[in-house]
Amino acid sequence: MSDRPQTPLLDTISLPSDLKRLSDGELRILADELRAETISAVSETGGHLGAGLGVVELTVALHAVFDAPKDKLIWDVSHQCYPHKILTDRRDRIRTLRQKDGLSGFTKRTESPYDPFGAAHSSTSISAALGFTVARELGGACESGLGDAIAVIGDGAISAGMAYEALNNAGALKRRLIVILNDNEMSIAPPVGAMSAYLTRLYAGVPFQELKSAATSAVSLLPQPFREGAKRAKDVLKHSVVGGTLFEELGFSYVGPIDGHDLDQLLPILRTVKMRATGPILIHALTKKGKGYAPAEDARDKGHGVSKFDVQTGEQRKSRPNAPSYTSVFAKALTDEATRDDRIVAVTAAMPDGTGLNLFGDRFPKRCFDVGIAEQHGVTFSAGMAAGGLKPFCAIYSTFLQRGYDQVVHDVALQNLPVRFAIDRAGLVGADGATHAGAFDVAYLSCLPNMTVMAAADEAELVHMVATAVAHDTGPIAFRYPRGEGTGVDMPERGEVLEIGKGRIVREGSGVAILSFGARLAEAEGAAEVLAANRGISPTVADARFAKPLDRELVLDLAKAHEALLTVEEGSVGGFGSHVAQLLAEEGVFDTGLKFRSMVLPDAFIDQAAPREMYDAAALNAGHIETKVLEMLDAIAFEKPA
Amino acid sequence: MSDRPQTPLLDTISLPSDLKRLSDGELRILADELRAETISAVSETGGHLGAGLGVVELTVALHAVFDAPKDKLIWDVSHQCYPHKILTDRRDRIRTLRQKDGLSGFTKRTESPYDPFGAAHSSTSISAALGFTVARELGGACESGLGDAIAVIGDGAISAGMAYEALNNAGALKRRLIVILNDNEMSIAPPVGAMSAYLTRLYAGVPFQELKSAATSAVSLLPQPFREGAKRAKDVLKHSVVGGTLFEELGFSYVGPIDGHDLDQLLPILRTVKMRATGPILIHALTKKGKGYAPAEDARDKGHGVSKFDVQTGEQRKSRPNAPSYTSVFAKALTDEATRDDRIVAVTAAMPDGTGLNLFGDRFPKRCFDVGIAEQHGVTFSAGMAAGGLKPFCAIYSTFLQRGYDQVVHDVALQNLPVRFAIDRAGLVGADGATHAGAFDVAYLSCLPNMTVMAAADEAELVHMVATAVAHDTGPIAFRYPRGEGTGVDMPERGEVLEIGKGRIVREGSGVAILSFGARLAEAEGAAEVLAANRGISPTVADARFAKPLDRELVLDLAKAHEALLTVEEGSVGGFGSHVAQLLAEEGVFDTGLKFRSMVLPDAFIDQAAPREMYDAAALNAGHIETKVLEMLDAIAFEKPA
Repeated sequence: MSDRPQTPLLDTISLPSDLKRLSDGELRILADELRAETISAVSETGGHLGAGLGVVELTVALHAVFDAPKDKLIWDVSHQCYPHKILTDRRDRIRTLRQKDGLSGFTKRTESPYDPFGAAHSSTSISAALGFTVARELGGACESGLGDAIAVIGDGAISAGMAYEALNNAGALKRRLIVILNDNEMSIAPPVGAMSAYLTRLYAGVPFQELKSAATSAVSLLPQPFREGAKRAKDVLKHSVVGGTLFEELGFSYVGPIDGHDLDQLLPILRTVKMRATGPILIHALTKKGKGYAPAEDARDKGHGVSKFDVQTGEQRKSRPNAPSYTSVFAKALTDEATRDDRIVAVTAAMPDGTGLNLFGDRFPKRCFDVGIAEQHGVTFSAGMAAGGLKPFCAIYSTFLQRGYDQVVHDVALQNLPVRFAIDRAGLVGADGATHAGAFDVAYLSCLPNMTVMAAADEAELVHMVATAVAHDTGPIAFRYPRGEGTGVDMPERGEVLEIGKGRIVREGSGVAILSFGARLAEAEGAAEVLAANRGISPTVADARFAKPLDRELVLDLAKAHEALLTVEEGSVGGFGSHVAQLLAEEGVFDTGLKFRSMVLPDAFIDQAAPREMYDAAALNAGHIETKVLEMLDAIAFEKPA
Repeated sequence: MSDRPQTPLLDTISLPSDLKRLSDGELRILADELRAETISAVSETGGHLGAGLGVVELTVALHAVFDAPKDKLIWDVSHQCYPHKILTDRRDRIRTLRQKDGLSGFTKRTESPYDPFGAAHSSTSISAALGFTVARELGGACESGLGDAIAVIGDGAISAGMAYEALNNAGALKRRLIVILNDNEMSIAPPVGAMSAYLTRLYAGVPFQELKSAATSAVSLLPQPFREGAKRAKDVLKHSVVGGTLFEELGFSYVGPIDGHDLDQLLPILRTVKMRATGPILIHALTKKGKGYAPAEDARDKGHGVSKFDVQTGEQRKSRPNAPSYTSVFAKALTDEATRDDRIVAVTAAMPDGTGLNLFGDRFPKRCFDVGIAEQHGVTFSAGMAAGGLKPFCAIYSTFLQRGYDQVVHDVALQNLPVRFAIDRAGLVGADGATHAGAFDVAYLSCLPNMTVMAAADEAELVHMVATAVAHDTGPIAFRYPRGEGTGVDMPERGEVLEIGKGRIVREGSGVAILSFGARLAEAEGAAEVLAANRGISPTVADARFAKPLDRELVLDLAKAHEALLTVEEGSVGGFGSHVAQLLAEEGVFDTGLKFRSMVLPDAFIDQAAPREMYDAAALNAGHIETKVLEMLDAIAFEKPA
C-alpha cells in the first residue's frame, strides 16, 4: 500500500539474529522504522498501540543483545508484543493481528518459538521466567534450547500480588534472572496503589538527563561475578541516590531508573547484565506509552486498545453502535441505583474504563475503589465492606475473576456475605481471543453454596439484574453479561427487582422447549422463528435468568409439557445445563425419557475472531440451535452401540 | 476435671469488657492463666496449639485496649484464635473445639459477634480490615457497631501476594488501619522467600532487651494527628535504626520490632496507636510459636496442628493408623518415580509437611521448591518449568488450589503445558471444617480444555496415578485424593501407567450400576454388598478413574446394560456426574429413558466433624448409596406434577 512507511533497514530483518550485524547507530534507525511499521500495522488492524510503541527501543535492544529463542523473552500481559512479533519472523502477517486466522494480539506458544510463554492476563512473567531458569539448571530441555530468562513487566503488572510472590521467591532462590520493569506510569488505568507512588519516588526530582549518568554509574556498579566482590558492589548500589531499596530488600540487584527510549543506555546496560549478572536483577526502565506517535501519547488511555485509525490524524474508525454496550448500561444502571442508595460502593481491579466504573467514579468518587491489578484483594475488600454493612459491587471480567476465585469461595460464599459480582465479558469476546473468554464463571460460581448466579439475556435484563443485586442483601449474587452492544431492546426507566430463582417464558410453543441462560436468548428466538417459518415447529423459548437457584418449577414444567428440552448458554460444561440435568435426574424426569440436550461452549479454547465467528466455531449461533432442535426431534430411540 | 489449671482471674472474665477493670499487672497474670487454659483445652481437643500460645499476650493486650466487638479484630488464618475465643464469651465451649457441633477451630462470623470476619485460608485479614475501615467511613452499619479495624497477620501470611495487594491498596488509601505483624519466624513450614529474610534483617543483631527501648522510642515518635506534624515524625521514624523501610515505602507507619510477649511493650504501644494513629500503621511484634509450653516450643512445626496430648509430657495421643495415609503414599510414590526420572521436580506452597513433599525434599533438595504461601506463583512457576522441559508436580490441597485457579486456566490449561497437579485433601476433611473442604476442584478443573482429571479410589490407585502423571507429558493432568488413611489394599511394587480416559469395572452385577469417581468407591462397594446380601440386588460397581476425559465407552456400556446408573463422587455438582450427564444427554441415552442419579456434595458448607460424620451430613456414605439405589429401582414412572 502506498501509505506504508519506508523501512529499508527493517526490510532486511526477518529474525532477531539479523540484528547482530547492525551497529548501534543502525539499531537506532531500526527502532524508528519499527515504530513506523507498528503504527502502520495497527492502523489497519486495531489493537493495543500505545503499549507496543512504549517498548520499541527495548524490543530492539533485547533482541540485539540476547539470543532468542534460546534466551526466553517473556512479555508480561504481552499486549506490547507487536514490535517483537515484527522482529521475530512474523512481519509478513503483522497486518492480520487480532483477526480471524491471523496473529494473536498476545504472545502465544503455538504461534512462534520466539514466544516461549504466552500471556494476556497480567503479572505472570516473573513466575514463568523463574521456571525457565530452574529448568535450565536442572537439565530441562526444549527445542529452542534454554538460555537466559528475561521478564518484561509493567509498573501496573508488578503491583499485583502474583508478581510480588514471584519476586519474593526469585529473590530467595538467587538464580540469575533478569526482570525489566517497564515503568510508564500508566498501566491500563492511571496507576494506583502505594507501589506506584513508590516507583514515582524512585525518580522524583531526578531530571531525565541526569538519569543517564545514573545509569552509567549503575553499570559500573553492577555486581561482578560473586567471587569478585558482588556484595560490596551491591552495598554501594543500595545506597546510591536513585537505588531501589524495596527490590533490593526482596533480593534483587537494582539498576535504574534508566531512559527506556535511549538505546545508548539500554544497550550497554543489557550487555553488561548479560555478561555479569549472577543473581536476580531488576532493570528499571522509564518509558512513555504511545511514544513517538502524538495521538497515542495524548490519548487518555495512551492508546491502550484502539480500533483501526487514520495514521495522519489518529482518528479512529469505529462503527456506530446500534445499541448501547452492556458495559455502559451496567454503569448507568449502577450509578442510577447509587443515587437512591448511598450504601452502594463499587470496586474495580485496574479496569475503571473497561468495566464502566469510570462513570460511577466520576459521579461518586468516594464510593468507587480502584484497587489496582489485585483481584484477590478486591474480592475480600468487598467482603469486608459487605460485612460492614455496605453494598459492594465488585466489577471484574469473567476471566479475571478467576484470579479471585478462592476469595469468592472462602471470604464471600462461605460467609454468605452480600457482595455483588458484576461480571462483564461473559462468553466469547472477540479479538482478545481465548485468554479473555469468559467461559468458566457459571461453572465455578454455581457450584458454590449460598451463591446466586444470574445472566442477562439483553441490556434491559441487565438493568433489572443490577436492581435485583442491590435489593438482594442476604448473600452473594453474581450477574454476567457479554462484551459489546446490547440487542437494541426498549430500555426501562428503572430496573425492576426480579424474583430470585424465577425465569420467564418469552415465547409460547410446543413440542420442544429452548431454555436459554444469558445472551444467547436472541439466537434461541431466532432459531425458533426459523423453525416456525420453515418447519412448522414452534418451540417454546424461555429465559432462565438464574443458574442458581434454578427455577425448578419452570424447568420441570417445560420438561413435562414438551417432548424435548434444550438448554443454551455462553459457558462451559458444568454450568447452567449441568445444574438443569442434575435437577431433571434427581426428579426422575429421565427415568421414562426426555429428549434433553445442553448446548455449551466446546471443550476447546477458541482463537480470536469476531464474536459471531467465534460462536460459529463454538456452534452456538441460531443456526446451530436450529440444527440441534431438528436433531433432537428426529432423534431415534436410543440404540445400544454394536 | 482435677488436672485443669487454677485460673482464678480468668474465671472472672467472660467478655473483653471485663478486662477494662484490670490493672496492667493483673493483665499479666491473666495472660499466664489464659496460656494454661489454652494448653489444657487443646490437650483435650487437639488442634493448633503453638499458634495460639504465641499470641496469648497479644490477645490480652488487644482486648484490654480495643473495644471488640465494635472494634473489628481480624485474626489472619485464625488458627491462633483459641485464646481469643476464651476471652470472648466462649470459654464454656472451648473444650468442644474442632469437634462436631462444637466451636470451630477458626474464627467464624456465625459463631460470635467477636469474630467479625472468618478465616482459615491465609492472608485475607488486611483486605477485610480495609473493608471495615471504609464501611465505617461511608456510613455502613453492623449490629455491633463499626470501630477500628485491626488485622493480626503472621510473617508467613504477609508474604502472600494477596497480603501485598492489600498493603499496597491500604497504603494508598491512607485510612486509619492497624496491622499487627505477628512475626514468629515460623509459619506452617520454616519461612521461605525474600520477605522472610527481610523481616529477619529488620531485627538482626538487635538484642531483645534493646528492642524494648526501641519500642519506647517508637512510641514517642508515633505520628501526631496529621496537622501536628506527622510528616516530620514519620521521617524521623523512617531513619531509625530498626525502621521498616519496605512497609513505609508502601505507605504504612512502622513501629517495631517489639517483644510480642511483653505486655509492658504491647499495652503502651497499642494505647498510643489507638489514641494517635491517623493512617495505616504496622506494628511488628516478635513472638515465639508455642511460647510457654516446652513441648510445643520444641516441636518441629511448633505445635501447628496436634492431636490430643498429655499436658505433663506433651505426648500426643494418636491412634495407630491401619493403613498408610494418602499423603505418605503420594510422597513415597513420587520419590520413587523421581529416582528413575530426573526431570521430576516438585512444588509446594508452604505446605511441605502437609503435602508430604518434605520426604521428597529430603531426598531431592534441589528438585523441591517451597515457594511460600504463593499458590498463584507456584502454579505459573510450575508452568514455566514444564515449558522448559521438566516434569513439575505442583502439590496443592484442593481448597488452596482455588488460589491459583486463574493460573491453572491461563498459564497451564490454555498453553497445554504438562503440569501435574497433586491435589490432596479432596472431599471433606474433618476437624478443619468447611474452609478446608476440597469440594469444587473437579468442577473447576474438568470444565477446562486440555485438562485431564483423575481421582484415586484407594492408595494403590494413587500410586498408579502418580506413575500416569509422570508418563503423561502432552498436557496438564490432575489427580485428587482424600485426607487420611487409605483403605488398606495391597500396595503395588511400582505404579502402572493407566490408560488415559479408561475406567474399570470392580464388581460385575446387573440391574443397577454404581459408577464411582474417587475414594467413595469403598462405600459404593459396601452398599453393593449389603444390597446383594439383603435385597438380592447385585449392582455393578465401576471406578471411573477419570472425570476428564470420560471413559465414554464404559459410561455408555453401563447405561446400556443396566436399568439404572448412579454416579458417586466426593465433590460438588458441576463435576464428574455433570460430565457423565452431559455425555448421556448428548448421546441420546435419556431420550428413551434411563434411571440416572448423581450423588454429589450437597449445596451447603458442612461444619467440622469426623470425616465419616461429615459424609453422613453430606449423605454420601454406603448407607446413603444403598438407599439411593433402592429409590432409583423403586422409582415410579415420571408423573407430571399436578
